[in-house]
Amino acid sequence: MKIDGKEYRTIWFEDNKVKIIDQTKLPHKFIIKTLKTSKDAVNAIKTMEVRGAPLIGATAAYGLVLAILENKEQTFVKKASEDLINSRPTAINLKWAVDRMMKKLSGVNSEKILEIAIKEAYEICEEDIKFCENIGLNGLKIIEEIYSKKKDTVNILTHCNAGWLATINWGTATSPIYHAHKKGIPVHVWADETRPRNQGANLTSYELNEEGIKNTIIADNTGGILMQRGKVDICIVGTDRTLSNGDVCNKIGTYLKALAAYDNKIPFYVALPSSTIDWKLKDHKEIPIEERNSQELSHIEGLDENGNLKKIRVYPKKSKAINLAFDVTPAKYVTALITEKGLCEATSSGLKKLFNK
Amino acid sequence: MKIDGKEYRTIWFEDNKVKIIDQTKLPHKFIIKTLKTSKDAVNAIKTMEVRGAPLIGATAAYGLVLAILENKEQTFVKKASEDLINSRPTAINLKWAVDRMMKKLSGVNSEKILEIAIKEAYEICEEDIKFCENIGLNGLKIIEEIYSKKKDTVNILTHCNAGWLATINWGTATSPIYHAHKKGIPVHVWADETRPRNQGANLTSYELNEEGIKNTIIADNTGGILMQRGKVDICIVGTDRTLSNGDVCNKIGTYLKALAAYDNKIPFYVALPSSTIDWKLKDHKEIPIEERNSQELSHIEGLDENGNLKKIRVYPKKSKAINLAFDVTPAKYVTALITEKGLCEATSSGLKKLFNK
Repeated sequence: MKIDGKEYRTIWFEDNKVKIIDQTKLPHKFIIKTLKTSKDAVNAIKTMEVRGAPLIGATAAYGLVLAILENKEQTFVKKASEDLINSRPTAINLKWAVDRMMKKLSGVNSEKILEIAIKEAYEICEEDIKFCENIGLNGLKIIEEIYSKKKDTVNILTHCNAGWLATINWGTATSPIYHAHKKGIPVHVWADETRPRNQGANLTSYELNEEGIKNTIIADNTGGILMQRGKVDICIVGTDRTLSNGDVCNKIGTYLKALAAYDNKIPFYVALPSSTIDWKLKDHKEIPIEERNSQELSHIEGLDENGNLKKIRVYPKKSKAINLAFDVTPAKYVTALITEKGLCEATSSGLKKLFNK
Repeated sequence: MKIDGKEYRTIWFEDNKVKIIDQTKLPHKFIIKTLKTSKDAVNAIKTMEVRGAPLIGATAAYGLVLAILENKEQTFVKKASEDLINSRPTAINLKWAVDRMMKKLSGVNSEKILEIAIKEAYEICEEDIKFCENIGLNGLKIIEEIYSKKKDTVNILTHCNAGWLATINWGTATSPIYHAHKKGIPVHVWADETRPRNQGANLTSYELNEEGIKNTIIADNTGGILMQRGKVDICIVGTDRTLSNGDVCNKIGTYLKALAAYDNKIPFYVALPSSTIDWKLKDHKEIPIEERNSQELSHIEGLDENGNLKKIRVYPKKSKAINLAFDVTPAKYVTALITEKGLCEATSSGLKKLFNK
């Protein structure tokens, strides 16, 4: 998708190095960063220079490529794969991507290993783009249907950033929106600010602006009254992990919007590539909820009056804060899942049928 | 209540002047400001140096005292009363307090007028303190009951600041908490940050810290997962307007917490003095929702690395934002109302019975 009129992906391989957009500097600064080692990749994931389940997976895959460039020995690559998997606890794509790479590389001799690793990481990216495109085409039908009845701008609420910046291109939750916009359907997006890291403001609103899609940032508290007053036609969010029963683990606060949508009879869709489905875990209470540094809450960065990036403390000095990153939306509040293979009910049978499990 | 170990009220009369705590500087700076004229009082209300319905009312009452000290002539006092009413025309208590003062002063001769005005303003404050204290004693029973079963720290979630800083003393939602703490019941408060103005962090956490009550600031998104994982025993919030059917209009985001509490079978209480009950309005969709300046969202103030107060822009330059101040929690999600007269169901019959309407 476009930034400042130019087409980008979020990650690409160039001259035996990995290039990423440093998303911690967005929206104030657009900086392309070079990752040279697998440690750089681990660090990029940990510090959230790259974020979003698919992009984290792709970065981990390329992290293994970088590891192989450093040292082809099995123990080194194995250690790198473990460090990559451990770089963030909740995202399932991370382990999926690393496992897929390691499986492909297993038993490959050292002459071929780099070439195969590069090809597989590239495939992971291409596949993700194709999946996101299909999610968009499948979700487009829902937006088209709302538009055909309403015959006026479709108001879509989204939470956090499940945009192209969270994937390689198109995004998950945003892909139906981009497809609708390209088809000429008038859309307007309510972008939840998404405290504490403000990805809705910093990334979703930013990327929608750059694609020329109308959007309004709202405090995370605001979705409820907008739904109560008929200002939201549909919610579409992403997911970090989807259980086989349809429960959805996504950015903290998603659950609250799902409850409000349910209470106001507004359809609530979750867009996902099937790679985020966790077919094993049965109970959402067993999902580990990542706890991040509380400074992400107590401090905030922005531009001062001179246009310089500045970090300030906004909380009282004596106060403590806790920073949980995810919550769980029980399946009963999800209207349907939008996947690369089509729509399905957020139920065990719906998912099994669609994915032939 | 205490700040830095010393007992304060939010407003008091001293040497023919009015003293307030400048709440726009909290939590970073504790400044006591002196109001010398009725214009000073108007200004303090307008700039939100004082906020919270009861405190605004008290400030307006003392504003009239200051007007009389300036000039006892009827036309001057009348003009001052109008300016005070217009300082924030939406706040119900403001008009109520000024009308009460003017009624008391009507026909009083100039020798007595100052003495009577001072007494009436003091009475308005004393009455509010008594109401808040009673809310606390009534709410205390609920916390005691939870503690008697749990026999461990009671975790209370609150939204925004319905604390003593919004009243004269005790607060509304915080009053049961302060009473429980004083009785030796171990309590811990989850303080919703409350974007965009962060009153939960800036004021609620601040005042709880100063009283030595354990509290943790959380993003507004966080309450849901805490409830899902059993970390919240009870929610207590305030209200700006309570309809006669029990619907509660309070700070934006309250509704989302009520939904989550309901979904997780956690009691959700609303604390209020009966002065906030709107006996006339029948449909919550008719409540006008105040839209405030969007800069309250896009910009934020805090301390920089040198301890200086600094305002920064956090949103992308091209983005727009909307800043709605309230939402409505339908009565069915409210376990009960905690009032100065006792508890009642959040229903038409519950309210009518308690208040003999």
